[in-house]
Amino acid sequence: MSDGARLIGVDWGTSNLRVMRIARGGAVMDARSDPRGAGGLAPDAFPGVLTDVAGDWLAEGLPVLACGMAGGRGKWREMPYQSTPVTLEDLAAALGSPPGAPGVSIVPGVRAMSDGRMVDVMRGEETQIMGLELDRDDDCVVAPGTHSKWISVQAGSITDFRTFMTGELFAAIRTGTVMGAGMGEPDMDAAAFEAGVTRALADPALTALLFSVRVESLADRLSVESAADYLSGLLIGAEIAARLGGRMRPVTLVGAAALNRRYATALSLAGFTEVRVADGPTATARGLWRIHEAARR
Amino acid sequence: MSDGARLIGVDWGTSNLRVMRIARGGAVMDARSDPRGAGGLAPDAFPGVLTDVAGDWLAEGLPVLACGMAGGRGKWREMPYQSTPVTLEDLAAALGSPPGAPGVSIVPGVRAMSDGRMVDVMRGEETQIMGLELDRDDDCVVAPGTHSKWISVQAGSITDFRTFMTGELFAAIRTGTVMGAGMGEPDMDAAAFEAGVTRALADPALTALLFSVRVESLADRLSVESAADYLSGLLIGAEIAARLGGRMRPVTLVGAAALNRRYATALSLAGFTEVRVADGPTATARGLWRIHEAARR
Repeated sequence: MSDGARLIGVDWGTSNLRVMRIARGGAVMDARSDPRGAGGLAPDAFPGVLTDVAGDWLAEGLPVLACGMAGGRGKWREMPYQSTPVTLEDLAAALGSPPGAPGVSIVPGVRAMSDGRMVDVMRGEETQIMGLELDRDDDCVVAPGTHSKWISVQAGSITDFRTFMTGELFAAIRTGTVMGAGMGEPDMDAAAFEAGVTRALADPALTALLFSVRVESLADRLSVESAADYLSGLLIGAEIAARLGGRMRPVTLVGAAALNRRYATALSLAGFTEVRVADGPTATARGLWRIHEAARR
Repeated sequence: MSDGARLIGVDWGTSNLRVMRIARGGAVMDARSDPRGAGGLAPDAFPGVLTDVAGDWLAEGLPVLACGMAGGRGKWREMPYQSTPVTLEDLAAALGSPPGAPGVSIVPGVRAMSDGRMVDVMRGEETQIMGLELDRDDDCVVAPGTHSKWISVQAGSITDFRTFMTGELFAAIRTGTVMGAGMGEPDMDAAAFEAGVTRALADPALTALLFSVRVESLADRLSVESAADYLSGLLIGAEIAARLGGRMRPVTLVGAAALNRRYATALSLAGFTEVRVADGPTATARGLWRIHEAARR
């Protein structure tokens, strides 16, 4: 093919795989998704899954660059974490290929260090960061999701970050508690979401607030249909409250559209006045392209 | 029989039933447990289960007094919550019998009020409180468990309380998250428990601390066997950090022996110097007896 594709980009998350044909500059020309995330794959299963999903694209002979859990322990090839601060060039210099796949490279993860100890980890978000058009000396990027991350980026270098188990806790409460049983999907009741955010911003006792889901229901102030929104508000509000001690820096949100909207609302309620929104998959593709380019220099 | 039993006490929790033969004064002469908690029972199933478990005792013709979820909505008979402040006499005056069971009485639950609104609820702990030998004008009782409660008792009257979803969240994280998979049982590693408590007392960002379970494991500082203790420490520490009222009041712990031990350790780490420990089932039996006595006056 000669349609301008230059790179096959792979975002291999724990529970989802996304493969993209990427043009010069990082634009996504075509993309496919598959539920075979890295979480359930043994090391030797990765090549077959990738061929299943995008064998025709691989046949074009383009270089392949993967980020995310493909580089996790016990996955395609464990890529050691790079220690903060981490630049685009640091990531590009540390790419590695899985055994028997010289045309494939994997982006390493990043670990936050404090007093010489690893205190937090990311795999995938470092690539998104490199795909954002950050133009300040001191940026705060929020990547919402299963494991939400608040990331400090200084002049393009990842200097520090902190992970919140927001999305995974939301799912665990819905499936594993009495009050979660029968809860609807979120995004039905904006007022319930905002009530949850407001309460969590005002009160640090999250495990007590979680019980308020039940009390509000018993008092007929919260319907079953709205309970998931209220719970989501409590958890996202608690995440933002933990950052209120810091400065009200401008924030760049990078995630899926629906989550970006929820976080933008919650940040606004918390008094953040400057919030930019970026599309997660777009940032990942551009980051893969920029790392690929930097590695060829 | 003429062995001195004066009351059949029933503690019908969400997931467990306990029936006791109780002597004058509240001592437990004999007790039986059954897994048929009120959570899974329709209203008309209660008499049959009680007869299954203790039909021979019921045949003695003694009065029966039940507390806990037997009085919950959609259970044996819904007993309206009594609003704080609530005394022994208030509970005794509000007993009610389920339909067709005149020999059975059910203790009502209690609701905490703030600005005329119901802000928290209990069913069962009010009976435990009445069974404790509280002798101060201002007591703080902690009832650890699935839904841990911190209860203010002033001159024997329940004046305020707050519920923390500690135990239920612990279970939901163990069964519903990636990091929970393969976690052992708690009570294996006291140092890991204490490390969790200490971190949660120092840092209010609970959802970030929960992710530290994963980071500590990746850094080989926490074994799979010790992870449940560390997680338990985080959740109990967060509960204590948000303690009711904020003062370092003397605390009376009333729960199962293993939980009492964990909370006593955590309270000590938090600087609570005066902690008394009471056995939960003993307090429940004595509370049932005292309510029964007060209702006959």
